Amino acid sequence: MEKLKKQMSFLIEIDKLKNVFRQSLISDKSRNENDAEHSWHMAMYATILEEYAPKGTNILKVIKMALVHDIIEIYAGDTFLYDEEMTKSKEKREKEAAEKVYSILPSEQGKEIKSLWEEFEQKKTNEAIFCATLDRIQPIILNYLTEGGTWKKHNVTKEMVLKKGYLIFENADERLKKFVLNIINESVEKGYLLP
Amino acid sequence: MEKLKKQMSFLIEIDKLKNVFRQSLISDKSRNENDAEHSWHMAMYATILEEYAPKGTNILKVIKMALVHDIIEIYAGDTFLYDEEMTKSKEKREKEAAEKVYSILPSEQGKEIKSLWEEFEQKKTNEAIFCATLDRIQPIILNYLTEGGTWKKHNVTKEMVLKKGYLIFENADERLKKFVLNIINESVEKGYLLP
Repeated sequence: MEKLKKQMSFLIEIDKLKNVFRQSLISDKSRNENDAEHSWHMAMYATILEEYAPKGTNILKVIKMALVHDIIEIYAGDTFLYDEEMTKSKEKREKEAAEKVYSILPSEQGKEIKSLWEEFEQKKTNEAIFCATLDRIQPIILNYLTEGGTWKKHNVTKEMVLKKGYLIFENADERLKKFVLNIINESVEKGYLLP
Repeated sequence: MEKLKKQMSFLIEIDKLKNVFRQSLISDKSRNENDAEHSWHMAMYATILEEYAPKGTNILKVIKMALVHDIIEIYAGDTFLYDEEMTKSKEKREKEAAEKVYSILPSEQGKEIKSLWEEFEQKKTNEAIFCATLDRIQPIILNYLTEGGTWKKHNVTKEMVLKKGYLIFENADERLKKFVLNIINESVEKGYLLP
């Protein structure tokens, strides 16, 4: 029972992810998206877009990565992609947060989930690269749907989006790349994104 | 590109799940939980509690079920577990909603995801029973954490919780059963749940 109690304590603790808000607005513009919803949406992206992952990608691993990739933000907070100052301290804050949150789980399981998050952060395996690609695409789509949402608020340019989205453009499936590039170009045309 | 466009349209449409609110409060009692967060939380329950699933359970299938199990509520709305009147029309409303939402996807994929939801609803396979069990446990834990939340509001009794949670008590792993039964009994002692 001790093991199960630890697992339930973790599942209770991560309820807090529902109160960590991101920069992105949800598609009806009514409010900011939170990390729990974002993680669900990314896991759905992985489920629906599995066929665009590199051959041999373990989709169960990608989905689990999507589910856990932002849990550290319960303590480390959301770091806005274009906030260079916050980005400097991101690694340290997130490592400490990972120690804290994953130590709630039974030791072996804590290590296992923590290493899944570390793999995601390192962006070297097929699974991590595909998951990170979806993590770039999802907010681009939301920014497009909300007529520029975060982009407008922070004077983001097309160049900035392309630079931060390099994983999409370097490694993604050609069809995905083309779709996202069309969205970005249309966003510039419509004035949602600075040229 | 036509196929990918359909898939992206579906991923855009289901953003609406973030605005379908459930009866349960989130653990800090600040507001009701929405379906997208709930689905993420359930997928995390499946990930962390995999070892309590019946032998041979396909956990990828359980996680996908958890991710999609409430998508039909975008059109059908959330049906409160203890609302007998709403429950009467639930099946019809949800079937129509499933037709509508899954027809956005490419035909084969739409059928595939719809059948995953149907399997969940029928509660006959190991995967569906385990997923439905987690779908019962998660709100019980939230009601306990919010000092009776939904239970108090709707005068729910221990007998009602046990009756609606029969899947937990009939088929679940003994340790899970014991843990949940302890939570329910403690809730009665603390006055969160009517005896």
